[in-house]
Amino acid sequence: MEKPFDVVALVGSLRSDSFTRRLVRSFDALAPTSMKIEIVEIRELSLYNQDEEPAAPAPWVSFRSRIKRADAVLFATPEYNRSVPGVLKNALDVGSRPSGASAWGGKPAAVVSVSPGAMGAFGANQHLRQSLVSLNMPTLQQPEAYIGHAASLFDASGEFANPATREFFLKFLKAFDEWIKRQTRPAEP
Amino acid sequence: MEKPFDVVALVGSLRSDSFTRRLVRSFDALAPTSMKIEIVEIRELSLYNQDEEPAAPAPWVSFRSRIKRADAVLFATPEYNRSVPGVLKNALDVGSRPSGASAWGGKPAAVVSVSPGAMGAFGANQHLRQSLVSLNMPTLQQPEAYIGHAASLFDASGEFANPATREFFLKFLKAFDEWIKRQTRPAEP
Amino acid sequence: MEKPFDVVALVGSLRSDSFTRRLVRSFDALAPTSMKIEIVEIRELSLYNQDEEPAAPAPWVSFRSRIKRADAVLFATPEYNRSVPGVLKNALDVGSRPSGASAWGGKPAAVVSVSPGAMGAFGANQHLRQSLVSLNMPTLQQPEAYIGHAASLFDASGEFANPATREFFLKFLKAFDEWIKRQTRPAEP
Amino acid sequence: MEKPFDVVALVGSLRSDSFTRRLVRSFDALAPTSMKIEIVEIRELSLYNQDEEPAAPAPWVSFRSRIKRADAVLFATPEYNRSVPGVLKNALDVGSRPSGASAWGGKPAAVVSVSPGAMGAFGANQHLRQSLVSLNMPTLQQPEAYIGHAASLFDASGEFANPATREFFLKFLKAFDEWIKRQTRPAEP
Repeated sequence: MEKPFDVVALVGSLRSDSFTRRLVRSFDALAPTSMKIEIVEIRELSLYNQDEEPAAPAPWVSFRSRIKRADAVLFATPEYNRSVPGVLKNALDVGSRPSGASAWGGKPAAVVSVSPGAMGAFGANQHLRQSLVSLNMPTLQQPEAYIGHAASLFDASGEFANPATREFFLKFLKAFDEWIKRQTRPAEP
Repeated sequence: MEKPFDVVALVGSLRSDSFTRRLVRSFDALAPTSMKIEIVEIRELSLYNQDEEPAAPAPWVSFRSRIKRADAVLFATPEYNRSVPGVLKNALDVGSRPSGASAWGGKPAAVVSVSPGAMGAFGANQHLRQSLVSLNMPTLQQPEAYIGHAASLFDASGEFANPATREFFLKFLKAFDEWIKRQTRPAEP
Repeated sequence: MEKPFDVVALVGSLRSDSFTRRLVRSFDALAPTSMKIEIVEIRELSLYNQDEEPAAPAPWVSFRSRIKRADAVLFATPEYNRSVPGVLKNALDVGSRPSGASAWGGKPAAVVSVSPGAMGAFGANQHLRQSLVSLNMPTLQQPEAYIGHAASLFDASGEFANPATREFFLKFLKAFDEWIKRQTRPAEP
Repeated sequence: MEKPFDVVALVGSLRSDSFTRRLVRSFDALAPTSMKIEIVEIRELSLYNQDEEPAAPAPWVSFRSRIKRADAVLFATPEYNRSVPGVLKNALDVGSRPSGASAWGGKPAAVVSVSPGAMGAFGANQHLRQSLVSLNMPTLQQPEAYIGHAASLFDASGEFANPATREFFLKFLKAFDEWIKRQTRPAEP
């Protein structure tokens, strides 16, 4: 059997009990066996400052190295002020430097955005996608994942309150798995 | 020899001597032999109105049919008021309807944006990309093509004034060709 | 008594029974007496083509003239393919030309976006706002108006199904009225 | 004589010799006497985490308090990965919380974006503007300030290399000053 894809998940909220984090954790039980999703923490990444590159902080170095090892990246993010949280954008920035040594290049990506309100963090989702163009990350287009009403996603027992949500994520993760396969297998048959 | 990819090019300006149109025409001499680029006109597409679907105007019908036959789509666009020209957005809208019968779904895409000023129609390029997410068109990320100073792209003899521009588009079109191959060949080897 | 503000409303859908149009019509009963909202039709505006400027089509001419007379503009729009409908964007483009003679400059604006789904046409709303920057239209920031579930906005008798929606629009229109006052009264006390 | 407007400037780069910072410093000599621009540092603001609100870090508290005192805010930003630097977005996020106690509400704003390349950080400029909608900051529309080729803005003596750039910023700062006046003076004459 082949090794499963090593998928790094970045969670755009640092809240320990964040809806977004809980959602990503639920993916362990839903993802195809051909992928393994690991949340990589971004809270230790200090604010990006190019002046520090000659002696880059250890968390920057290990974060970049972890991303470089990954086969693909899953971005899971709330929306702060109609855009990507600074926390998550900072991780993108740290991983993209120093110039010419981006850790992101070529890695297939998917985006799931999560909000307590109705609009599913559309603004964060799309702003993030604009960055992924310049980072050269081929990004899954469909299904789009704008997840609203995050506080009622799970019931008291920790299961999806609505079975249709579970079905949606099964489909989403399967599509992501196929997307990774397509973007990473050798070009010649 | 295999049939070349049938690539439809949409030009976001109706001006007969538009810079964008001239640029797309220059691609004939630059594109790999494995793709054939054809400009499909959008000027006959009347403004989209769902009420007309029961007796859809003939230009809508033939446009949709032409897009459906295509292997891939190249969007070449100026920027009007920091966004996609209404002309081009209307073509996108016509091709996406009626609901459930979009002509665009799954077709690989690339975007080149063109402006007389310095900024290369960045706003049009990125707004268009946001639409391509929901249209499920896997879109080439790199190289990005923001082309500024369009009035001086070509010299008096119709050649690229700057050889580096020609090199850029050779690379861009080759990357698009590989992107189409990757997105369209069968999933199993 | 002072003359009420002449507010032009543009409706981004041509469907005769569009939700967006119905919503704008309901504003007649909600707007402060200090503003008068008139829907200006955009269906007769042919696709913008700069080549036609020397003999601009009559609908372009009268549209530009009507906008120039207005005190303010209310944009009411659905979302087509995660952005502004081509129909409405074309009207923006027609009104912005010829170069140096834009009809929009300096007019206070507000945006209400409307969708049948949950997300309230966020993508159209924000793309439109990006255009309004370059058109130099000071735009009301709050309250933002992302209106979802448009099919159930009104009950069988044509009243707002939810009184809170009515309250929201009373507040929205009052804020727009104050915004127009602030942007248009003389600078010196 | 009236007290000048207290304008806080936020610089989106932490680099000590950043082009953006240098540009903002040059404004001291260009701004009308009716405004005083002060750079407020954002490097000490740790990554936003709602869990820390019950005992908010001191730099968050003093930053929020400083913003609340300000009459207006000038955002000066480079572009990181086609969007707002995480550094600056984090400052926006910190200032916007806790929920219901945003420091930004109602303060007039202007945006200047700066890049070493040709495109003037358009992506950062517009993404930032999307956040300013939800933060309820009335934002200067024109002149837009997309500043490219930042490395050659100043000559060896620290003056603007191109006098037209200096003229542009005189005009920009004057427009911002008038914008602040308009948005902040009492509504009734």
